[in-house]
Amino acid sequence: MGLIVQKFGGTSVGSIEKIKKVADRVIEEAANGNDVVVVVSAMGKTTDELVSMSYDITERPSKREMDMLLTTGEQVTIAFLTMALIEKGQEAISLTGWQAGIKCEAVYGNARILDIDTEKVQSSLNEGKVVVVAGFQGLAEDGGITTLGRGGSDTTAVALAAALKADRCDIYTDVTGVFTTDPRYVKNARKLYSISYDEMLELANLGAGVLHPRAVEFAKNHHIPLEVRSSTAQEKGTLIEEEATMEQNLIVRGIAFEDRITRVTIYGLAGSLGTLSTIFTTLAKNQINVDIIIQSMTEQDMNNLSFSIKSEDVSNLLEVLEANKEMMPFQRVETETNLAKVSIVGSGMISNPGVAAEMFAVLAEAKIQIKMVSTSEIKVSTVINEKEMVTAVEALHEAFKLDERKPVEVL
Amino acid sequence: MGLIVQKFGGTSVGSIEKIKKVADRVIEEAANGNDVVVVVSAMGKTTDELVSMSYDITERPSKREMDMLLTTGEQVTIAFLTMALIEKGQEAISLTGWQAGIKCEAVYGNARILDIDTEKVQSSLNEGKVVVVAGFQGLAEDGGITTLGRGGSDTTAVALAAALKADRCDIYTDVTGVFTTDPRYVKNARKLYSISYDEMLELANLGAGVLHPRAVEFAKNHHIPLEVRSSTAQEKGTLIEEEATMEQNLIVRGIAFEDRITRVTIYGLAGSLGTLSTIFTTLAKNQINVDIIIQSMTEQDMNNLSFSIKSEDVSNLLEVLEANKEMMPFQRVETETNLAKVSIVGSGMISNPGVAAEMFAVLAEAKIQIKMVSTSEIKVSTVINEKEMVTAVEALHEAFKLDERKPVEVL
Repeated sequence: MGLIVQKFGGTSVGSIEKIKKVADRVIEEAANGNDVVVVVSAMGKTTDELVSMSYDITERPSKREMDMLLTTGEQVTIAFLTMALIEKGQEAISLTGWQAGIKCEAVYGNARILDIDTEKVQSSLNEGKVVVVAGFQGLAEDGGITTLGRGGSDTTAVALAAALKADRCDIYTDVTGVFTTDPRYVKNARKLYSISYDEMLELANLGAGVLHPRAVEFAKNHHIPLEVRSSTAQEKGTLIEEEATMEQNLIVRGIAFEDRITRVTIYGLAGSLGTLSTIFTTLAKNQINVDIIIQSMTEQDMNNLSFSIKSEDVSNLLEVLEANKEMMPFQRVETETNLAKVSIVGSGMISNPGVAAEMFAVLAEAKIQIKMVSTSEIKVSTVINEKEMVTAVEALHEAFKLDERKPVEVL
Repeated sequence: MGLIVQKFGGTSVGSIEKIKKVADRVIEEAANGNDVVVVVSAMGKTTDELVSMSYDITERPSKREMDMLLTTGEQVTIAFLTMALIEKGQEAISLTGWQAGIKCEAVYGNARILDIDTEKVQSSLNEGKVVVVAGFQGLAEDGGITTLGRGGSDTTAVALAAALKADRCDIYTDVTGVFTTDPRYVKNARKLYSISYDEMLELANLGAGVLHPRAVEFAKNHHIPLEVRSSTAQEKGTLIEEEATMEQNLIVRGIAFEDRITRVTIYGLAGSLGTLSTIFTTLAKNQINVDIIIQSMTEQDMNNLSFSIKSEDVSNLLEVLEANKEMMPFQRVETETNLAKVSIVGSGMISNPGVAAEMFAVLAEAKIQIKMVSTSEIKVSTVINEKEMVTAVEALHEAFKLDERKPVEVL
């Protein structure tokens, strides 16, 4: 007996048939004697269709009105799922974000949750009902309906779990858990049964795509155990918690990778103290996310600066640099596209200073040139040629023995 | 300078193109210096699609969840229309029913408006914004989202107009106004430029279909002038107000008609005092609407009773009568289908007792047999054979000179 928050994403509720299956999953958990709160996203492609229609009206839709529009998607899903639960004999009630007491900043399109008034959810649970909550949305301080931005339904689920002091938050998705690396690319990729918040954060930020970093961070701060599970297969998923005890011996827990990376080098940058700050503030203001940064002093008062960005941002970047050249003078810009980022992640690295060296050795042996490097306490990232990405991941996966199942794992 | 409430129905907002045209209509009114509140329905067939999907889940969808589902329809429209207004340079804000302060009974699927807290609408108007409100919906006393049942968006518009003390409430629709009779059947049908609330109520209840009776009644009780106008054509519509002064001379204002009527006769009904009350209470409980009722005493303690119902209710009626036979004993039931109801309406009748007689004479001359008659102060209804319906309407339209334009009319 406990309180479980379950979250089902857009693919899991993509059709009426799938919604009926989700209802079975929910009832299963309730039949175990648990109180269940279910958070759902909009059905499959609903959001994309609504967005596309709004662009037939205007190139720059009002963010407030876009939120008004898109939040109908989850409202449709909660109604359908609740109907399905009732049809199957399970008492249930649907609640929109505002009905569930989810209070947000009035930042349309990308609001953060400020507070959750759980009274209505709690009283409905007390009446023996499964509570079905619309993810991705909340009530803004100005009375408007806001969305929480990317990965929003994950965040709704974790925030509700924290506010309700839930025993667990299960994230149902179209994969069966978190893997040592992407199984679509590396056939030996193995499902992890346990991973720490910090490791998951690095993997999430590095593009593993299973779980939104914001949700992981929220879970970490509020000590909510997360489990990533398959919405279709009946098998154990990946538990994300404080310390991943079961596989403690593993130095490297997983390998993340991302293609379509571009390295940008700015030559002959005027070397005043504020230049770096000016550049990166300007880029951030223009929604250009910079990842790895390398600065090397070559001449007196003249710096060369390299950083990596997503290839899709290159044209925007070049425009922004040109437009602001007066504020931050430079000689020329070079870009190198068709690169990829490959990273190894594991909290065991903190006490193993040789891990980065081992990674470089593995890549060298595979004759892969490293173009950039960045390290944190629990990860090492390298930028390499895109066409060598999978080879690199496979070599690292084997070298760090990620395909070997540890005997301490429990199914 | 005044405050205008405009209402656009599902057909008027059936596509993005149509929504853009509605935006032009709204801006036109705002450009005249008026404060404008716009009430809209769901886009065209949205509601039907959602209903059909819910029946793939369950044969008996929860009414609360059905309301949760269907209210997304208007929420989509308000977002799109507000985006279109902003794109065209008009400041605007969308509000759902609950955001617009529309408070309802917790009767899902068919709630009545209890009160409107106009604070948010008023403050948005004060900021110079057009306020776009989702019709057909409100906030139930228990915190749920309810719909107002049939004709709900008309009611939202009129109720908002009353609460805001609006100068006028314009109902935009796919016809250009209220006609002397249905122009699809009678080519000489003529648009009325003025009609009283009571006349409109009789016409609305008699199936004229332009405006929901509930909305007309609300307008009458709160003295809100209504205008029925075309959402596409630029022409004067029909003004509905206390006294239709401009065409006062007309004794008959319009002719309403409805096919698919069945006459039911119950023979040998036990004649105790409570029998009639028992019958009609039982029918009402089973959602069978009885229209014209004729009772004739034929033998001691044995009554024959006739009434008209919609043909679609016949099978349900026969079941209900059989199931309750013990409570209200009778000998046998006869039904006559393929009938129609034709009614003349006009407040001038009150002072013209001969109007009913004239109607009967016109029908007799056309060799049309009258099967049932019912009269009120401002209308006379007759039930005749369905196949003679249009002939009857044409004969009456001509006899009462409804196709002659009066010189006092103002364009």
